[in-house]
Order: sequence, then structure tokens, then C-alpha cells
Amino acid sequence: MSTTAETRFEQLLSTRAQIGRQGGGSGAWPAAPVQYEFGGGKPDPGSFPYDEIVEATRAMMAAEGAQALTYGEAQGYKGLRELLAHKHEVFEGLKVDPDNILLANGSLHALSLVIGAFVDVGDAVICEAPSFSGTLMALRRHGADLRGVPVDDEGIVTSAVREELEALRAAGRPCKLIYTMPTFHNPGGPTATLARRRELLALAREFDTLILEDDAYGDLRFEGEFIPSLYALDDSGIVVRAGTLSKILGAGMRLGWLVAPKPLIPIFQSFNFGGGVAPFTSRVATYYMRDHMEGHVAKLIDVYRGKRDAMLQGLWEVLDGTDAEISKPAGGFFIWIKLPTAADTQKLAAAARQAGVGYVPGNAFMPNGGGERYIRLAFSYESEENCHAGARHLAAAIRTAMD
Amino acid sequence: MSTTAETRFEQLLSTRAQIGRQGGGSGAWPAAPVQYEFGGGKPDPGSFPYDEIVEATRAMMAAEGAQALTYGEAQGYKGLRELLAHKHEVFEGLKVDPDNILLANGSLHALSLVIGAFVDVGDAVICEAPSFSGTLMALRRHGADLRGVPVDDEGIVTSAVREELEALRAAGRPCKLIYTMPTFHNPGGPTATLARRRELLALAREFDTLILEDDAYGDLRFEGEFIPSLYALDDSGIVVRAGTLSKILGAGMRLGWLVAPKPLIPIFQSFNFGGGVAPFTSRVATYYMRDHMEGHVAKLIDVYRGKRDAMLQGLWEVLDGTDAEISKPAGGFFIWIKLPTAADTQKLAAAARQAGVGYVPGNAFMPNGGGERYIRLAFSYESEENCHAGARHLAAAIRTAMD
Repeated sequence: MSTTAETRFEQLLSTRAQIGRQGGGSGAWPAAPVQYEFGGGKPDPGSFPYDEIVEATRAMMAAEGAQALTYGEAQGYKGLRELLAHKHEVFEGLKVDPDNILLANGSLHALSLVIGAFVDVGDAVICEAPSFSGTLMALRRHGADLRGVPVDDEGIVTSAVREELEALRAAGRPCKLIYTMPTFHNPGGPTATLARRRELLALAREFDTLILEDDAYGDLRFEGEFIPSLYALDDSGIVVRAGTLSKILGAGMRLGWLVAPKPLIPIFQSFNFGGGVAPFTSRVATYYMRDHMEGHVAKLIDVYRGKRDAMLQGLWEVLDGTDAEISKPAGGFFIWIKLPTAADTQKLAAAARQAGVGYVPGNAFMPNGGGERYIRLAFSYESEENCHAGARHLAAAIRTAMD
Repeated sequence: MSTTAETRFEQLLSTRAQIGRQGGGSGAWPAAPVQYEFGGGKPDPGSFPYDEIVEATRAMMAAEGAQALTYGEAQGYKGLRELLAHKHEVFEGLKVDPDNILLANGSLHALSLVIGAFVDVGDAVICEAPSFSGTLMALRRHGADLRGVPVDDEGIVTSAVREELEALRAAGRPCKLIYTMPTFHNPGGPTATLARRRELLALAREFDTLILEDDAYGDLRFEGEFIPSLYALDDSGIVVRAGTLSKILGAGMRLGWLVAPKPLIPIFQSFNFGGGVAPFTSRVATYYMRDHMEGHVAKLIDVYRGKRDAMLQGLWEVLDGTDAEISKPAGGFFIWIKLPTAADTQKLAAAARQAGVGYVPGNAFMPNGGGERYIRLAFSYESEENCHAGARHLAAAIRTAMD
């Protein structure tokens, strides 16, 4: 391509396309050239139901082949929406009408439908600091003015949310969305208490804004008591919640969804330009989950709890006695580490690379900079043995970086 | 949901979401309650390779199951991009580097990635009148200022394109894109001549704009000579072309793609918020197409040619002697009818409904209104027998509407 053509492209790009021209921010991960892959939140390959997926495909094609291979409902295959309604009832005791569910190509796509429907370039959005890097990229691509508020052991700090909301109101600007992960926060780990959830809902009502609740990991609870989602606690129709099969079936299906007040469904749907979510995969997943959902999720909880414990053990075996702060999440895929004060992050990066350990530096998760003293580890992908061994290697790298 | 909450949503919606609040414009079709489904461009269910898809799934899962069920490359599964490069070479003699290909969830999603990258609310886009209704919906959702130009038997009328480009230049406004379907135009039918294609390319160069080429049907040529795509004819990197497997494999897979200059790939990719296109379906399709592509497409050409002929025969058996104008497309899925002068469109709608014949009224395809004297019929979905019988019923309804 000639330079002239490139210059031309630059001049014609939309405002959103001109923001953060690095591009590539799609949330997919390349194959990592590391021995211990603690980077992306990839599901455990050892738990994939290989044969059962083939069998589900066979049974589904025999029963619904023609529907599986043609265009489907714009809102997504009703069979899957019914299954998801059932899932919410089984796991959470929450009754959801399938018509309140909109299918999407994974939960990040689901979240982006909401962002597209509410965020113009320059609009204020409150999010957690830290927050999920993929959503931050999608928000940035839409030109959101990100207002990060801290998260502590009890979840999003609602007093800080109030301060932001008051500052925006004083400036005459609406807050378009409050984006939050109340359960098994990624990357931080904490689960918001019931009190915090109620405070956040009250704030959203008081300041006339909406809550975008991201719940990708809620079904993978290792211990502790279930706390109802913001969507379940809301009685005024101001919460939109995103979910996904990526963590409990397989990310390769790209199946996520929104649960939302009905008047919003057609609005979000109009931002799904792909002609609806794949009828083929929607049906394969449905046929599999109908027969296996509860047993499969129970098995995954054991698998991921074992990996979390192995990783924590490996870390503490080496880091005991330092002032490192290491999260112990009650569910999900991630451990969040505040590095020892003496650790040099550049030395750590070099030592970890040499040891073949992949991780994500904390600044990837920060809406407004910072986070350099943190790293995120995913215990989801590697085997329990590798979680332990790799954690020891990483901890040794941290020790090296303290010299 | 309370009225208060609804009001709140309205106030918080983005500019794009406020445009055309009818919503639902996702390009998916609900099941039509008609006896003869000539509405949406649905592929022939009788030609779906049911058993072969199950077998491809089995073979693929045995070979690549773990990759199929986890996150993939942001640009899309390389195996499918390589297969698509091969497809372009086999069917068109066109060499494409797999790195020039970006996978998407169907071609409308692919087109929307380009629209997102270039179109801000209020930006001018030249398109054909008539044009594909799905793309018009996506363009409208992005707030495009649509500038329709006519299409005749030789394709897009380039003198009209020049007039629009000159008018925009005089107004100091860029034309962001020229959206065109040069081959087997939907709904009109014509294929642009080589001369018109060259003229359009020269215009895009002269006026510093880009061409978005939509080629969903090019592989389904019933007769006549192959004409190279705008992408193939371009030597200055100003054409982005969208394609799809929906018409030659199955729309339920939701697999489409862009072929584009490499510097644009990461930009388009950054508008795919779904974490890449499904690794599972991408692989199923690839494993199937590797073994069956050429034979399957050859079979489809015979199937669709037969349906086109049956529909045309049915129409002319009844409408001969009227001043109806009926297209005879050399490929694709659609027949475009200019109704007889005497036909009343409301009477036609009632009579067709009574006869159980579904079609799409012409105004759905018009960027700037009009089209009431036209209707589009899809011969793709119904059997050859039904195409003939349904066409006779529709033609009789047209006759009724002339009384």
C-alpha cells in the first residue's frame, strides 16, 4: 500500500478509530511462548468435554440441523435463552424471563453492546480501579471518560462512587454507566458485600444512572456464601448484567449474554451487527448443557479451587516473610499480587521471562494509570502441578527483583 | 420497569442509539408464517451438508479440540484464513495473503467493522439505490448521511457517483466510503461491467475516498463470464472487500470476513469487541470446506440456477403481457421486480398475504426513500417446485392488484 493510501485512511477514520491507534484491543490472546501461562484468563483445557461436545453436535444436527445452519432469531436461539433462564434459577434461585436475555458473542461483546448504546465520545463512565482490561479497551474505543474508583475487601468503595457522582453532577454531566464486577472481581478478587451492593444501587437511583454488572465467574465459587447479584437485588430496572459460557463450557464457543430490562433489549440488539449469534454454536452448547450443566460446573469448581490453592501455596512457600500482599479469591480465575516494596518491576519482568512465567502487569487493569506495583496471575489454564511449580518460579523471580 | 427508569434510559442513550429508535435492525429474520418464503436471503436447507458437518466436528475435535474451545487469535483462526486465501485463488485466480484477511461474525458484522472505523454521526457515505437493507440499517445506526446513487444494467452509475463526490467536495465534506455490490447486486441483480469497476476505482482515487465492496454471492454464478472484484483490480490499497460463508456453507455458522490492506486490519479488529470470531465454528467450517468446497459450491450453483429459472417461469407464465420488469440475475439469490404500472401495492400486499407468499417491499432497500414500485423475491430458500408455484401465486396477486 502506498503512503498516499495510508495517509488517506488516517484522514477518513472515525473519531472512535482515532482513539488509541495501537489497535488490536479485541480481548483475544495469542499463543503465549511461555512455560507457565498465567497471563490470560483461559479455561482449563483438561476439563473440556471433548467427546460430549461431539455427541451434542450429532444429536443437535439430527434434531435441528436446518435451523442450526440458517439465520436465527435476532435475540438469539430461544432454546439457549431458556437454558440460561434455567441456569439462573438453579445456581442463584433467580427467576429470569428468556425474553430478558440477549445472546452475544461472549461477554465482552455483550458489554460492548451496552457501551455502544450509552457511551458517546467524551461521556463519563465510572469503573473500578483496577478493572477488567478487555472492558477498559472497549470503553476506551468508544471514547469513554473513565472515572476509576477503588475496590477494597468489601467491593467497590461506594463513598468514592458518591464523590465521583457528585463531582459529575456539579459539572452538569451525566454518569452514563457504573461498570462493576461485584463477584470474584477481575483482577482484584474481592466479592462485594450485600451492604455495598445495596449502597451502589441506591446511588445509581439517586444520581439517575445505570449499573453495568459483569459476572463472568459467579458460578465458580470455591467457598463462602452466595450473595445475590445487583440485577437480582434491583427492583427499579436500572441494572444490566453480562454473563458468559466461556468459563463454564469453553471460550471457543464465544457465547455470552445480557440480562436486561425488556425495553433495552431491542436497543442493545440493534448494536449487534452480525445478524444474531451463531445458531449452530448456540445449539451445540444448549444440547451439551442440558445434560451436563450441574455436574460439569461442580467438577470445574473442584478443579479451579485445587489450582488456586496450588498457586497460593507455591507463592507463599517462597514469599513468606516479605511484605507481598496476595489475594485469596473465593472464586474465579485470578490472583492479584501487590509486589513487595523492595521488588523492582523491570528486574521482575526480566527474571520471570527467563523463568518462562507469563503474567499480566497491573497497569493493564487501571483506568487512569498506576498499578505498577501489582501483577495478575491466572491459575485457570495450567495444571495444578504447574500452578504450584510456576508460582514458585515467579515468586523466586520476585525475590530476585528484591535484591 | 417503572416509567421513571424508562425515561432515565432515554436520557442516557448514546447519539447512535437515539437514531431510529425502532431498533431490532440486526439482519436476522424471524420464522416467517408464510407458505412460500421469498422474503429473507436464506440458504437452501436441502443442500446443507448435515452429516458432513457432524463428521467435520468429530475430526476437528479429535485434532484440535483444546484450541477449538479456548480463546483464539484476534484476527481469527489462521486455518480458516488460509482456506479463504485458497478459495480466492481457486474461484477467482486471486492471490490473497491470509494476513490480509480478518474474520468476522458474518459479512454484515464484517461490514460494520469498516463502518465503525470510518463513520461518525453525520458523515457522508455513497451507496447504491437500491442497496442491501441490512447494511443500510448498520449505516443508519452509525448515523451515516446516506447518498444513494442509481444502479443500471452495467452496475453502479459512475456519472452519478461523480456528481455526489463533486457536491460533497464543493461543500468541503469528505465522502467516507462508497459502499457497492458490483457482483449479483442485492436486490437489483446486475453485475457491474469491467469498465464501470475501473471508473469507480478512478473516482475513489481522484476524490480521496475508499470503496467498501460487498461480495456475498460472487461464488454462485449461474452463467456469464467472471469479472474481477474491485479489490482485485485495485493497485492502490483503497478497497476493502467483505465476504461470507453464509451462502455457500450455512448462515448459522456466522462466518464472514474482510479482505483489506494490512494497515487497516488492526483498526477493524479493534471494533470487534467479541474477543475474536468463534474458534469452534471457524474450525468446523474449515475442516468441512477443506474436503468439500469445490464440489459443494458446484452443486449449489445448479440448485440455485434451477430455482431462479423456476421462479422466473412462474412469474412470466402469469405476468406476460403486462409492463412488469423482472430481473434475470446471473447469480445470487434474488429477483427484483418493477411492478406493472397498474398494480396497487396495498392490494398486492393483501393478496400476497392471502396467498401465503412472503416478499420484501422495495422501500426496505432504498437509502433515501422511494422504491414503492418494486419488490424483492428470494428464490434461495424454497424448493424448485415451490419457487414455481409460489411465483405463480404472487404473479396472480399482482394481477389482482391491477384490477
